[in-house]
Amino acid sequence: MEHKFAERARFVTSSETREILKITERPEVISFAGGLPAPELFPIDPLKDACNAVLNEDGAAALQYSTTEGYIPLREAICQRMKMAGIDSSFENVLITSGSQQAIDLTGRLFINEGDAIICESPTYLAAINVFKSYKAQFIEVAMDEDGMLMEELEKRLQEHPHAKFIYTIPDFQNPTGRTLKLERRKRMIELANQYDVLIVEDNPYGAVRFAGEEIPPVKHFDTEGRVIYLSTFSKIFAPGLRLGWICADPFFIDKYVAFKQTADLHTDSFAQRITAKYMELYDMEEHIHKIKAVYKERCTAMLSCIEEFFPNNISYSKPEGGLFIWVELPEGIDSAHIFTECLNNNVACVPGAPFFPNGTQTNTLRLNYSNMSKKKIVEGVKRMGEVLHRELQKDSMLTV
Amino acid sequence: MEHKFAERARFVTSSETREILKITERPEVISFAGGLPAPELFPIDPLKDACNAVLNEDGAAALQYSTTEGYIPLREAICQRMKMAGIDSSFENVLITSGSQQAIDLTGRLFINEGDAIICESPTYLAAINVFKSYKAQFIEVAMDEDGMLMEELEKRLQEHPHAKFIYTIPDFQNPTGRTLKLERRKRMIELANQYDVLIVEDNPYGAVRFAGEEIPPVKHFDTEGRVIYLSTFSKIFAPGLRLGWICADPFFIDKYVAFKQTADLHTDSFAQRITAKYMELYDMEEHIHKIKAVYKERCTAMLSCIEEFFPNNISYSKPEGGLFIWVELPEGIDSAHIFTECLNNNVACVPGAPFFPNGTQTNTLRLNYSNMSKKKIVEGVKRMGEVLHRELQKDSMLTV
Repeated sequence: MEHKFAERARFVTSSETREILKITERPEVISFAGGLPAPELFPIDPLKDACNAVLNEDGAAALQYSTTEGYIPLREAICQRMKMAGIDSSFENVLITSGSQQAIDLTGRLFINEGDAIICESPTYLAAINVFKSYKAQFIEVAMDEDGMLMEELEKRLQEHPHAKFIYTIPDFQNPTGRTLKLERRKRMIELANQYDVLIVEDNPYGAVRFAGEEIPPVKHFDTEGRVIYLSTFSKIFAPGLRLGWICADPFFIDKYVAFKQTADLHTDSFAQRITAKYMELYDMEEHIHKIKAVYKERCTAMLSCIEEFFPNNISYSKPEGGLFIWVELPEGIDSAHIFTECLNNNVACVPGAPFFPNGTQTNTLRLNYSNMSKKKIVEGVKRMGEVLHRELQKDSMLTV
Repeated sequence: MEHKFAERARFVTSSETREILKITERPEVISFAGGLPAPELFPIDPLKDACNAVLNEDGAAALQYSTTEGYIPLREAICQRMKMAGIDSSFENVLITSGSQQAIDLTGRLFINEGDAIICESPTYLAAINVFKSYKAQFIEVAMDEDGMLMEELEKRLQEHPHAKFIYTIPDFQNPTGRTLKLERRKRMIELANQYDVLIVEDNPYGAVRFAGEEIPPVKHFDTEGRVIYLSTFSKIFAPGLRLGWICADPFFIDKYVAFKQTADLHTDSFAQRITAKYMELYDMEEHIHKIKAVYKERCTAMLSCIEEFFPNNISYSKPEGGLFIWVELPEGIDSAHIFTECLNNNVACVPGAPFFPNGTQTNTLRLNYSNMSKKKIVEGVKRMGEVLHRELQKDSMLTV
């Protein structure tokens, strides 16, 4: 009955990378492939208290249908957290979504007509690529260096695509590269957006997890015309299983998002919203995030020093100041899909980088995650990868000689 | 920045009826307008036990990212419940969704191209109309009588629209009419679907809440060719705030739904899935549903006898055997939007019926909900409505004389 499907079904297939993740779940594999937070840090006992308090205090209200916009005390708590990061907002700027994945999807629905140009970092977040593809967007990639998207190139792309719908950017500890857009470029991005009348979708799931370097305000902080739509989530600072994200934007946009959210799922789980708000009332979330940062810093540092020690010299890699990922560039001509297979034979897993480039492939790249493995496993896993890389790069250099 | 929106944004606006519901939430109003379950029946203490058990036993796994398909023990428990209703399935036929609203939305995404014909009951569920409209479907309405959709008319519509994508039907205690599709028509619907090679989307949120008459198997029970896609939910039998619904269909369809669900929100709240599965393990859900049925039966019976007593004679209404709604037809020429306003002045609320007709309006109809008000309020509310109706119908008959 293939013929029954809508045309858009051709553009949506189960993500390749998710299929890869299934293979890497074998217990003997040391996996740097996923993007999972460290589960040992989830605040299980505090959450128990929050569940009991919500059911005792709110009772049936916590289980009944609720408003599409979301639970007001949670939206207010989000505003407070954003304020610390440099974003002024009120709860009316905030729509609770079912994870930030839904925030990305609703953004596609609300803005993208077939063929619309979307400007993004090259590479960029895989699940956003899949969403925007499902709405048949055209991807305009902008090259990056270690300080994020290149502003000269962004301006060229804006000139070439005067009707581009939005700039999609992950300025903090980007997925997949771990790179951070530097301060001057954030200001410049806003100037360019104003000048070329384009929206900015700032996807910021990792910003709260900075463990090194200096805080930089989000792009939204510099927004003077309400043209930045800011997306974030509780997944990296609390519990991803609860599927709680949010959109912060001008109420003009929020109104339209709400209409689409109504058709998508009426509203986000009210119980999850209330227990998260209650947790923030009863416990110190900053203290909790502090613990996450300490652990991720240790793991990132360990991975970086092992890469330095065990990987061949002609490999470059990013040095993140937060977030979950390190990006590795192999010498040109090395196919990371092959490296992936060889690594898996050695019981260590990474993600090949090609799928993160929306138009075709830059096949000599790969992504490593450090948040989900112990330091011990990181040392052992990077060592195993190093063996594979030395062997494969030597083969390659012998071939090219 | 209106010009930035995608074209589809024109077709999606905040539902009129949801706006109405806001007005009717004033505490002095007796409201038959919403479609809310009775909150006093939510199993709050059992849910507390379930939360504690899940966090004690599953720990971090309950809070981590999870598979798109959903938590296997929950999917298996759903299969068991569907088996009691006459549907044979395994967990591989089941995808957990964020409420059955998402199941409807994913159905629209997966199947509807612009202009595709969707065959539905006239009237039908408002939120499904809004979803399918957002995908620019064409609605082909089929008239109903007290026993549901008329099969002769369905066949005519199938002949006129040989490429119709699916028949969207709510066979049990339909929203908005409260009517049930009788047994012979279910069998006939399957025959017609097979003959005309069309899919059936069976939306069944209320089937488990039958409080009178004899059980009738779902349309899916008679499906011989895997062409019925069955949607249901925990919202009417457990807790709507948790946003847990499901799709039961052939794995061929489930695979495609999973790909779209990945782009929509990755997966449904894992904690909500696990506490619901745990509740069904620790407690007797049938016993709980039995309580719901007893209360709804009492409220429905009260409302029907009050309508009989207080409404004018030239009004007809449905006599549901389950679910949440009674449908009222006023004499032709009476505008229920006006009745709604007059009722609200009398501090009683209903929903005008026109929005439930996807193509234009049958303005002399209205929907009453009985699940959310006590018997005492039902008596008082119907009495108030009766006063309005007597007055307005008398005015009208004086005008037409």
